[in-house]
Amino acid sequence: MSDNPSPVLIVGSMALDSVRTPTGEVQDALGGAADYSSVAASFYSPVQLVGVVGDDFPQEHLDFLASRNIDLGGVQKIAGGKTFRWAGYYDFDLNIAHTLDTQLNVFADFKPSLPEVYKQAQYVFLANIDPELQLQVLSQVKNPKLTVMDTMNFWIEGKRDALLKVLRHVDIAFMNDAEARQLTGKLSVVKAARALQALGPKTVIIKKGEHGALLFSGDDHFAAPSYPLEDIADPTGAGDSFAGGFIGYVAQQGSTKIDVLRKAVVYGSVMASFNVEDFSLNRMRTLSHADIAARYRQFRDISFFEALDEAIA
Amino acid sequence: MSDNPSPVLIVGSMALDSVRTPTGEVQDALGGAADYSSVAASFYSPVQLVGVVGDDFPQEHLDFLASRNIDLGGVQKIAGGKTFRWAGYYDFDLNIAHTLDTQLNVFADFKPSLPEVYKQAQYVFLANIDPELQLQVLSQVKNPKLTVMDTMNFWIEGKRDALLKVLRHVDIAFMNDAEARQLTGKLSVVKAARALQALGPKTVIIKKGEHGALLFSGDDHFAAPSYPLEDIADPTGAGDSFAGGFIGYVAQQGSTKIDVLRKAVVYGSVMASFNVEDFSLNRMRTLSHADIAARYRQFRDISFFEALDEAIA
Repeated sequence: MSDNPSPVLIVGSMALDSVRTPTGEVQDALGGAADYSSVAASFYSPVQLVGVVGDDFPQEHLDFLASRNIDLGGVQKIAGGKTFRWAGYYDFDLNIAHTLDTQLNVFADFKPSLPEVYKQAQYVFLANIDPELQLQVLSQVKNPKLTVMDTMNFWIEGKRDALLKVLRHVDIAFMNDAEARQLTGKLSVVKAARALQALGPKTVIIKKGEHGALLFSGDDHFAAPSYPLEDIADPTGAGDSFAGGFIGYVAQQGSTKIDVLRKAVVYGSVMASFNVEDFSLNRMRTLSHADIAARYRQFRDISFFEALDEAIA
Repeated sequence: MSDNPSPVLIVGSMALDSVRTPTGEVQDALGGAADYSSVAASFYSPVQLVGVVGDDFPQEHLDFLASRNIDLGGVQKIAGGKTFRWAGYYDFDLNIAHTLDTQLNVFADFKPSLPEVYKQAQYVFLANIDPELQLQVLSQVKNPKLTVMDTMNFWIEGKRDALLKVLRHVDIAFMNDAEARQLTGKLSVVKAARALQALGPKTVIIKKGEHGALLFSGDDHFAAPSYPLEDIADPTGAGDSFAGGFIGYVAQQGSTKIDVLRKAVVYGSVMASFNVEDFSLNRMRTLSHADIAARYRQFRDISFFEALDEAIA
């Protein structure tokens, strides 16, 4: 592991979310794919954040992000503008988000422009955002070591060509199983992952929520279990936290070897499992490295089925 | 591991299945929960089979079962009777079996009666069958070391009280995730498993098909991955093969310690993954112990994320 981890460049949505679940609700809480993934990554590596907010974005949120070693030099604050807002709810099936309202606001005219120092980024995460904006960011980064993207059904339906272009240019693609099926037309998640690899990314990571996550990298295949949470407060941002933990860990290790990628999937799963324990990013505010280490060990215990002497044999 | 593994007593349906899937079809092929689970178990331990067939049941099927070290002394052959038949098909979503026809035939009047030697069985698997028949078998076994049951939605709906009584008397219950939710009314599979444990069995194993399997035993939790098959010929009997491999391995080891149960879940997953590669029990006819050992190693590779030196630390 590197003593001076490279910063991770993250671009995506910064939002104020209003969310209701069977256990509670929040209004105008800190949210957005870039915020979730940046905070999760920040437990492993410094982060350079690219995003846009209105001048209604509370200073306390910016202060919290800055306190997490997240560089806000790439965050545009639009005077007189309003921050992107999402309102939604989950019923008892927490796998399904029901959108009540989406206000793009300052996001509608967002043109990501990278500070000069960000263009040297080695590790780049294109969080869920319009794939045309993902391409604008990619074109500004000079010589990245690892590029990672996430997306959602909205862009698969509405910006398919731009999304396919992003896929041709990244090393790793994150999708949930429904998105992978939707994009490739393959019902089998294994076939869908292989089809995604054929579209460009050498590595595909399929997020399956309560069923864990799958890594397909070249011919390598890895299955991470999910943490057996009995109660989930709010699933919002689980996938973003997963991806942020993943790329943060990779940047911290300074390596994209397969054993690092496998552990990164587990660290991503750890971050997602914590994130859903509370609303918004609240669980991240008190999370410690000792908490992370303990849950990582639990993931190992959950998936272990051989004594060491047998594993050596 | 024991040099002389105890036989596993298995009771359940013996059937002639007619199945169509997107890749092909079979007519009146060997099927039934007891046949699938007995053959899977037979790769690890001898089996004592309790079931019923008509005199239309082909002798070649009995010869095949006998060739697998399965004792047929508990199989009743009803003169003039017809064997239980199931006909169904799967569309592209292989998780959903569509039933076309069910003929109980000799099964309608089945009263399992155990040969004297079977009553000494240490390892008992009550495959999917009317829970009242499962209770009749349990009452005849004198002093079992481990009792394991499986069931299906049909009995959860139609024979709930008898099923709850079975659960109070067994050590291990197998269910798929939908059945566990249906029986307990809990949407979370973790909560459903805990609720099932509260109904009696110390250990609950949740089969999740393409998402692997979960073991809940006391406070212990283990998640086995699924094998990333790209093509499935016929999913019929996957759950039965899983349970048969599980109990066969436990009997072979002669132990119900948690590390044995975890490995048994993996061996069960191995047997299920082979079984779906062909129709009926055809894959089992050519399966070798070397095939099993190789796939077990693949399951280990799929779920491993730490180098040994780190695991020791």
